[in-house]
Amino acid sequence: MTNVMGADSPRAIWAASVTLLIAIAAGTSFSVGAQPQVTATAGDGTHWLMPQPAQMKPGPGRIPISTTTTVGVSGFSDDRLRAGVDRMMRRLEGRTGYTMTRGFTDPATATIVIECQGPGAAVPSVNEDESYGLTVSGAQVRVQAPTVVGALRGLETMLQVVSGDVEGFYFPGVQIQDRPRFKWRGLLIDAGRHFEPVAVIKRELDGMAAVKLNVLHFHLSEDQGFRVESLKYPKLQQMGSDGDYYRQTDLREIVEYAGQRGIRVVPEFDMPGHVTSWVVGYPELASAPGPYAIARGFGVFDPAFDPTRETTYKFIDTFVGEMAKIFPDPYWHIGGDENNGKQWAANAKIQAFMKDKGIADAHGLQTYFNQRLLVILKKHGKQMMGWDEIFQPGLPKETVVHSWRGQKSLFDAAKQGYDGVLSAGYYIDLMNPAAQHYAVDPLPANSGLTEAEAAHILGGEATMWGEWVSPDTIDSRIWPRTAAIAERFWSPRDVTDVDDMYRRLERVSIQLEELGLTHERNSEMLLRRLAGARDISALQVLADVVEPVKGYTRGSQQRWTTLGPLTHLVDAVSTDSAGARQVRQLIDGLLSDAPRFAAGREHLRATFTEWRDNRHALDVLIARAPALKEAAPLSADLADLGALGLDALAALALNATPLDAWRDERVAVLDRAARPKAALEFPFVPMLRELVFGAMAQAEMKTMSVADWRARVRALANPPRRGGRSGDARFGDARFGDVPVFHRPVR
Amino acid sequence: MTNVMGADSPRAIWAASVTLLIAIAAGTSFSVGAQPQVTATAGDGTHWLMPQPAQMKPGPGRIPISTTTTVGVSGFSDDRLRAGVDRMMRRLEGRTGYTMTRGFTDPATATIVIECQGPGAAVPSVNEDESYGLTVSGAQVRVQAPTVVGALRGLETMLQVVSGDVEGFYFPGVQIQDRPRFKWRGLLIDAGRHFEPVAVIKRELDGMAAVKLNVLHFHLSEDQGFRVESLKYPKLQQMGSDGDYYRQTDLREIVEYAGQRGIRVVPEFDMPGHVTSWVVGYPELASAPGPYAIARGFGVFDPAFDPTRETTYKFIDTFVGEMAKIFPDPYWHIGGDENNGKQWAANAKIQAFMKDKGIADAHGLQTYFNQRLLVILKKHGKQMMGWDEIFQPGLPKETVVHSWRGQKSLFDAAKQGYDGVLSAGYYIDLMNPAAQHYAVDPLPANSGLTEAEAAHILGGEATMWGEWVSPDTIDSRIWPRTAAIAERFWSPRDVTDVDDMYRRLERVSIQLEELGLTHERNSEMLLRRLAGARDISALQVLADVVEPVKGYTRGSQQRWTTLGPLTHLVDAVSTDSAGARQVRQLIDGLLSDAPRFAAGREHLRATFTEWRDNRHALDVLIARAPALKEAAPLSADLADLGALGLDALAALALNATPLDAWRDERVAVLDRAARPKAALEFPFVPMLRELVFGAMAQAEMKTMSVADWRARVRALANPPRRGGRSGDARFGDARFGDVPVFHRPVR
Repeated sequence: MTNVMGADSPRAIWAASVTLLIAIAAGTSFSVGAQPQVTATAGDGTHWLMPQPAQMKPGPGRIPISTTTTVGVSGFSDDRLRAGVDRMMRRLEGRTGYTMTRGFTDPATATIVIECQGPGAAVPSVNEDESYGLTVSGAQVRVQAPTVVGALRGLETMLQVVSGDVEGFYFPGVQIQDRPRFKWRGLLIDAGRHFEPVAVIKRELDGMAAVKLNVLHFHLSEDQGFRVESLKYPKLQQMGSDGDYYRQTDLREIVEYAGQRGIRVVPEFDMPGHVTSWVVGYPELASAPGPYAIARGFGVFDPAFDPTRETTYKFIDTFVGEMAKIFPDPYWHIGGDENNGKQWAANAKIQAFMKDKGIADAHGLQTYFNQRLLVILKKHGKQMMGWDEIFQPGLPKETVVHSWRGQKSLFDAAKQGYDGVLSAGYYIDLMNPAAQHYAVDPLPANSGLTEAEAAHILGGEATMWGEWVSPDTIDSRIWPRTAAIAERFWSPRDVTDVDDMYRRLERVSIQLEELGLTHERNSEMLLRRLAGARDISALQVLADVVEPVKGYTRGSQQRWTTLGPLTHLVDAVSTDSAGARQVRQLIDGLLSDAPRFAAGREHLRATFTEWRDNRHALDVLIARAPALKEAAPLSADLADLGALGLDALAALALNATPLDAWRDERVAVLDRAARPKAALEFPFVPMLRELVFGAMAQAEMKTMSVADWRARVRALANPPRRGGRSGDARFGDARFGDVPVFHRPVR
Repeated sequence: MTNVMGADSPRAIWAASVTLLIAIAAGTSFSVGAQPQVTATAGDGTHWLMPQPAQMKPGPGRIPISTTTTVGVSGFSDDRLRAGVDRMMRRLEGRTGYTMTRGFTDPATATIVIECQGPGAAVPSVNEDESYGLTVSGAQVRVQAPTVVGALRGLETMLQVVSGDVEGFYFPGVQIQDRPRFKWRGLLIDAGRHFEPVAVIKRELDGMAAVKLNVLHFHLSEDQGFRVESLKYPKLQQMGSDGDYYRQTDLREIVEYAGQRGIRVVPEFDMPGHVTSWVVGYPELASAPGPYAIARGFGVFDPAFDPTRETTYKFIDTFVGEMAKIFPDPYWHIGGDENNGKQWAANAKIQAFMKDKGIADAHGLQTYFNQRLLVILKKHGKQMMGWDEIFQPGLPKETVVHSWRGQKSLFDAAKQGYDGVLSAGYYIDLMNPAAQHYAVDPLPANSGLTEAEAAHILGGEATMWGEWVSPDTIDSRIWPRTAAIAERFWSPRDVTDVDDMYRRLERVSIQLEELGLTHERNSEMLLRRLAGARDISALQVLADVVEPVKGYTRGSQQRWTTLGPLTHLVDAVSTDSAGARQVRQLIDGLLSDAPRFAAGREHLRATFTEWRDNRHALDVLIARAPALKEAAPLSADLADLGALGLDALAALALNATPLDAWRDERVAVLDRAARPKAALEFPFVPMLRELVFGAMAQAEMKTMSVADWRARVRALANPPRRGGRSGDARFGDARFGDVPVFHRPVR
């Protein structure tokens, strides 16, 4: 790189070094995101609750937490409540390090009192009253709730309220009245594409309970695997699962575990498409003769049930009857998505059937299938739910429409009287940052729905599709982002401050690991394994500021099947890089209000210097660790971006506009760095581009207001392009409006 | 602290800063233990095998590993072998990131060929032939073994042989002929004091298999908990376990899982002492009327079975009969330790019984009990094993003596024809570094045993007693140290190079996490939880150089019961601090050969500076996180020790002997820092003392050889004291000779 601005001169190096020395002297770390927290402690009323309660009022005083902290239960109590209180107290012990008295003491004198009015529904219900009140006042903490589930929700809030300072741990004075905005707050876990052991499901359930989610949507069959033990049709798991399936005892244990935490389990057995794993053992169910093998790739596959044969419905009837005994929830998800219709089109008998019945097309045939399915489900006491492809004329009104394609279908369905659940916008497998999901509201103010229509919007579900997750990585794909989504489903509509969400998310993320979740710790574990060494500091500099490519592009970057190891660098890094976010914020701050941003400039300079100087150490690591070979171009990119950042800072500091050639060279670096490598990307490249163009536009700074100049720089860096998009398309773009996206990666 | 030597002068700070800048420019990290590896890569013949094979010869060439790497099985194969090969290939995929072909290909053309001669014993046997050969030569990797277990051992070695460089992953040319030195290589897991879920036991078994251990000694009952489901006597688990016990299906699953990996499971049901949890439900078994409650503290408790009542033996007979069906191994551990005899002494009926039978004392009564027990065990096909208290006159010859008190009892027993297993020296719960355990040999060259007598030494067992471990921390207490112990049990006697052991241990430790073990990753997780923050860099500086107090002193530092949370700082840090070890080595190197140690001096200076300057950031963290409050004095100590180290370095560099007052002040700092806080200690304090005395003795440096001067400094720093001990008592002391230690902490 040509040295136009002299940023690599000894003097510039000296300046950068001084920055580092200052940082050393202050005891701070150089790594981005590792600055001492500047947010206030809880003492001043700042809280870390997530989801944020409906109503909250700080009160006076505090109640210290110590080894003599006790808990009592007044009013109704049952085994579920007692077990929940006990779990909470064990977590409080783990967090504080104190050993407290086991069991319950007299509620009149206990530190914490649970006042519960009744058990609530015997089977967790979509209509459960989950409200609660939490009061920390005087000498007692009171959790009041009409149901056990409400009390459990209140206990989670109580644990989040716990604060600490030099005087110790305490409950700060507060009055909370809380209840959920939506009654359906779910997480879909796809155990079909990659199996997730029972222990994984249990820890996800604990995480869900901690952020007040109440539905585990359990996606149990897929082209890539049939994950349930059927005693009626044992070839389903024997031939369709590679041995990775839940025994019926496992499923009962999961349902019980979820119920203990006030979480419903809604099973999904996707049909008539996505059924390859079924027809390996039972090819007679398919619309083409077979034989079939378990799918190993990803995408939409041809196999579909034959909706024209009575034996298909008999099979389903028997199977649903068997499973209905295991899953007590009244809802039953039939999938119903992405049937490509190829097998139906190619089958003369099916075509004749359609003609005979006057069915016009595949949509019509699927509606016929669904109507038959509905009768079976009703017989077994189940209410049908399916992906929004099933929203076709003739769909029975009691069906719940689950929208993955956008809000429009949901609102259209609501207008026609269908209940609906939103997942479009909550596809956490797409690797987008929490902020993007957080911005999506199941029922925005401008939905155009009447109050009666709006009541049909039951809530939403985050969807953890399983193409790219293993038991070691699924936690980091679900958490902590899903906590932000949980807040969207629970908290009032106007809770939308992104910075505040991230502030609270950081702490919630650490607390979630108390539950056995591994989303933070497994990152370093995977990095150490990749490097084959304990010292991964150079690798961490890179890993801290990259993110997985978004959407379904990983499949085009890495050839993959369900059998491939998910131990690559992309599997180790966060979907939501705090380091990258901070760099973006610092540059934006610098360009928006340079004089006030002196501290940010020093921080940026230290960060850029670290990037620039990281290359040698990282390359040495890579040379010894072939599993990191794919990171080599990223190491070069990061060093180039560091040098570029220093150049641009120096240019701004010198108040001299660089030459056009300087800009062009740097734009070339940025363009190169913007291309994903190893299925990873630098999320701050567009902002660095603005920094470069800011340096170019210095002369204009005096001619306009800071805000105008900021806008001018943004426009310079992002000229209109084909398609008209500009700016960092990863934020606030239209992806999650009603623009169709692939439900899952196309093969 | 008075500034005698001017080490805090601007010039000194500048010098230290330059060191840091150099380190920055080189892309290295400042944290101790985080230097780039200076050891050679595998290409030059250096290997990372642990345990080291009996015979190993590097050969020419290499076989690259790629997506086309295949495996074939020739000769004998069964489900166990095929499953083992499949597990190995999945691990190879995980490590390389490659997706390889599943299943087996033609062994004539496969990259890896397994040549197995037969199945070996149907139930894993103490006499199993575990030998194997591993040859990487030409185009094929060959694993040859007489038994499936031998092949599994060879596959583990093959995975450890895998190397990598810029050209990629490969098997380096090598010829290995290997077999274990001892046939009994065990790990005791005490699930009595703290329950460990099935998933924990399974991952420990995987770790054991990776380092070729072959016995899980499963300690299943204790005063603090009865951990097995009995259908015959259900009150055992119902009243004695707090609900934390293994169902019989769990136990069968564990035994099966172990057997798949060639690991025997030897159950221990400790009696006649350590039986409090039994007598909660069945007080009639005890020698005093009761009632009893599960023990919550630690130590030796009074309850003991009543050996005078026939109903006791009927109970044991029925119970052993039930358990014998679950544990197929012919060995059965009866415990037999630490019966304090108080209940027997206080029971008039028992005293009368003894008089009647001519039994002189409690030892005699216990021998009587053991003889009765032996008959019961024989009836159920079991061979008796017990702790070395049972080695009393009259002990049946077929009993295996398990020595926890020292090698003497083992050798004495061997001379009398008893088989023996050594655990004295392998008490990993004592928190000693790996080097200390590594130095203990079950059969040292000077044992004084004849060849025939020596054959009675079956091997050894590391013992993970459960007072201070939870499912979150047990891995870091077992691993990686137990890998070094496993090497002691497997490898030739002359494999004793401690530095080389640590070099290999670092890599093995990372590889062990591939198996789901959490010993590395949970440390950071616990630190983040303690801090309640993601940025734990200041805390890490401290955590990296402290170790838990050794022996049973934690109990005297922290009041504790089985119900207390194991989430303190002491639970998060390694038992074997690499950072502390490095500082010790650097100081020792500096004092031993100062001129050659210029690099070490710079490194030390950077480390000391980091310690000195860490205090503010750490104190800020502590002020916000009450769970870290106990670390505050350690933060102060570390800063003082850093300043002290810089002072001493400066004194040496200036070649001027400090005043006696300077020394006295520093000795006071060292004495203060040497006192444990928060159950933690700085393991390098004695070596820092030598640095201070080295600075004092500079004038003498010219009057003698470097070696003599080094010895002189050591002597100055460690004057003879009461008891005659000198030096760093933590290494090479007599603790693990025949000096009695408490088997477990005294209450």
